[in-house]
Amino acid sequence: MTRETEYMKIALDLAEKAREMGEVPVGAVVVFENRVIGKGFNKRESAQSPLSHAEIEAISEAAAYLKSWRLEDCELYVTLEPCIMCSGAIVQSRIPKVYFGARDPKAGGVRSLYTLLEDERLNHRVEVVEGILAVESAELLSGFFREIREKQKLSKKQSESGNLE
Amino acid sequence: MTRETEYMKIALDLAEKAREMGEVPVGAVVVFENRVIGKGFNKRESAQSPLSHAEIEAISEAAAYLKSWRLEDCELYVTLEPCIMCSGAIVQSRIPKVYFGARDPKAGGVRSLYTLLEDERLNHRVEVVEGILAVESAELLSGFFREIREKQKLSKKQSESGNLE
Repeated sequence: MTRETEYMKIALDLAEKAREMGEVPVGAVVVFENRVIGKGFNKRESAQSPLSHAEIEAISEAAAYLKSWRLEDCELYVTLEPCIMCSGAIVQSRIPKVYFGARDPKAGGVRSLYTLLEDERLNHRVEVVEGILAVESAELLSGFFREIREKQKLSKKQSESGNLE
Repeated sequence: MTRETEYMKIALDLAEKAREMGEVPVGAVVVFENRVIGKGFNKRESAQSPLSHAEIEAISEAAAYLKSWRLEDCELYVTLEPCIMCSGAIVQSRIPKVYFGARDPKAGGVRSLYTLLEDERLNHRVEVVEGILAVESAELLSGFFREIREKQKLSKKQSESGNLE
C-alpha cells in the first residue's frame, strides 16, 4: 500500500464510523510530518451543526494541535470531493495539497461544480490529487443512501397498510 | 433606523470588538424571530483557527441555540461580503436571507469573485441584500489596515536606524 492509500484508508475508516452513527459517511485526516494530527468524520446530525463536515473537524483538530491557523506543511485526505464550504476552509488554512477519493457531482467545489482550490485570483492555491480509494469511498456512500431509501420504502408500506386497517 | 440597519449595527459593534483585539474587523449576527441568537467576530489570530470567521462563529452559536443544523427561519447580517468558506457555510445551514455591508473584491464569494449563494445547481439558494452600513464597515477595515501599515513602517524605520548605530 502506498503512503497515500494508507492515509486515505484511515479517512475511509472514519467514514465508516460516521455510517455506523447514521451519518452520511465521509471521513478526513490532516497529515503533518508523516503523522495524522487531525481526524474528522461527518457528524452533522449527531452534532446538529451545519459546519460538522469531516474536513472541518479534521482541520479544526490539526490547527489546535499545531496552535496555528496556518496548516502550511500539512496534507488533507478526504474520502469525498470537498463541498464549497470545505474547499473554502482548505484555502483559509493554507493547506498546500489535498487528496480526495470520489467526486461529488451535486456539490463538489474542487472538480464537479467549481475548481475553487485552483482559483488564480485567491491568495492561496492547492495541489489536488483525486481518485485514491474512490471506488471504496463511493460504494460506502451509495450503500448508505440505498439503505436509507429501503428503510423509507418499508416505513411507507407499513404506514399505508396501517391506514387500510 | 430600520430593522436591517439595527442588526447590522450590532454586527458592526462586534467588528469593532475584533479590531480592539488586533483582528481584521468583521462582525456577524444570526437573527431568528426578531432576536439575535448568534453573534460572531473574526478571531482567527486569537483563536489560531482558520475557521474562526465572524459568520462561522455566529452560525455555530445559532445552531447550538436552536439545537438544529437547519437555520431555515434565520437571517444573517455580516459587515463584509462572505468569503468562499462562509458562503458555503451559509448554504450548508440553509439560511434563506443574507445581508452584508461592504464588498470584498479580493475574496468575496457572494458578488466579487463568485455568486455562490445564488447557484441554481446547489440544493439551496439565498436571497442577498448588500450595502447596509457599507461605508462604515469598509472604513473600519481600511482604518485597521492603514494602522497596520503605519506600525510596520515605524518598526522598519526603527530597525534601520538601529542598524546604523
